[in-house]
Amino acid sequence: MDVYTCIRTKRDTRFYMDTPIPEESLRRILQAGRMAGSSKNSQPCRFVVIEDAAKKNELAACGHYAQHVPYAPVVVAIVLSGNGWDFDAGRAAQNMMIAAWAEGITSCPTSMHDADCARRVLGLPDGYRVAIVLPFAYPPPSGPKSRGLARIPLDDLVYRGGWSDPPRADE
Amino acid sequence: MDVYTCIRTKRDTRFYMDTPIPEESLRRILQAGRMAGSSKNSQPCRFVVIEDAAKKNELAACGHYAQHVPYAPVVVAIVLSGNGWDFDAGRAAQNMMIAAWAEGITSCPTSMHDADCARRVLGLPDGYRVAIVLPFAYPPPSGPKSRGLARIPLDDLVYRGGWSDPPRADE
Repeated sequence: MDVYTCIRTKRDTRFYMDTPIPEESLRRILQAGRMAGSSKNSQPCRFVVIEDAAKKNELAACGHYAQHVPYAPVVVAIVLSGNGWDFDAGRAAQNMMIAAWAEGITSCPTSMHDADCARRVLGLPDGYRVAIVLPFAYPPPSGPKSRGLARIPLDDLVYRGGWSDPPRADE
Repeated sequence: MDVYTCIRTKRDTRFYMDTPIPEESLRRILQAGRMAGSSKNSQPCRFVVIEDAAKKNELAACGHYAQHVPYAPVVVAIVLSGNGWDFDAGRAAQNMMIAAWAEGITSCPTSMHDADCARRVLGLPDGYRVAIVLPFAYPPPSGPKSRGLARIPLDDLVYRGGWSDPPRADE
């Protein structure tokens, strides 16, 4: 799969098979997260890998929309040091999810609405917080079921030259 | 370039050639940003494309470390609606930068420390703010000059099973 196709076709999905994720794939996913740049190379992200069924269930109870989390064989929590920027966590998450999708592994960023709950399950020390939880899994044979939510058309997202400038003549 | 290599080799660099970015490449970059998922599909990101030399100079004056911005032929500001999450801007930014790098185009997330300055230059309406500015350019023939800042070793970033669990026996 070429890079652009991989990026373009990646969807956040919540239906998973329990097929194990090969250790080599997991290592590439984590390495992709590691190689994401960060503000002033501060490298504020840490990755907590959860594969234990009981712990996945506990983690799922920390989010409002996290019921799918225990069905994924591997769950990676992206943890930020106290003053870490969510933008950098987003970069690391996207790198991990794109690297996974290149190997046919789907994922879905999942918020932990009860931050203290998630910190307790992951055993985080003071000064760290959970930015996001990423379940990784192979999709069912029918393909990754996406709700297929529409995207805003590109021309409505993009402003050329400035917000209030009229569209260019060639558009 | 395969996906993993693209992700793994992407560096944030600040030395640019003035070779124009083909319109088709820019369209794929913007489309990659558009296809990044977002929290509850809220799609909070908008993209302001700046190619005018005077505007690029004005934008460069809004950040502490933005002197490189005017040297890039195309600059994309990622704008968030008021309650938009920086995590989602990070996802969109990473998609755009990875799609660009697949075509040999380098980039560097650049903060606008004077947010009002950036809002004014981009002509943003109330309720929008600049999350980040991304210059896109071809690197010099010597390759993308990276300061080559070291990454923390993977084993020091990753916690298996929980923060305080000992490493697994097979590690």
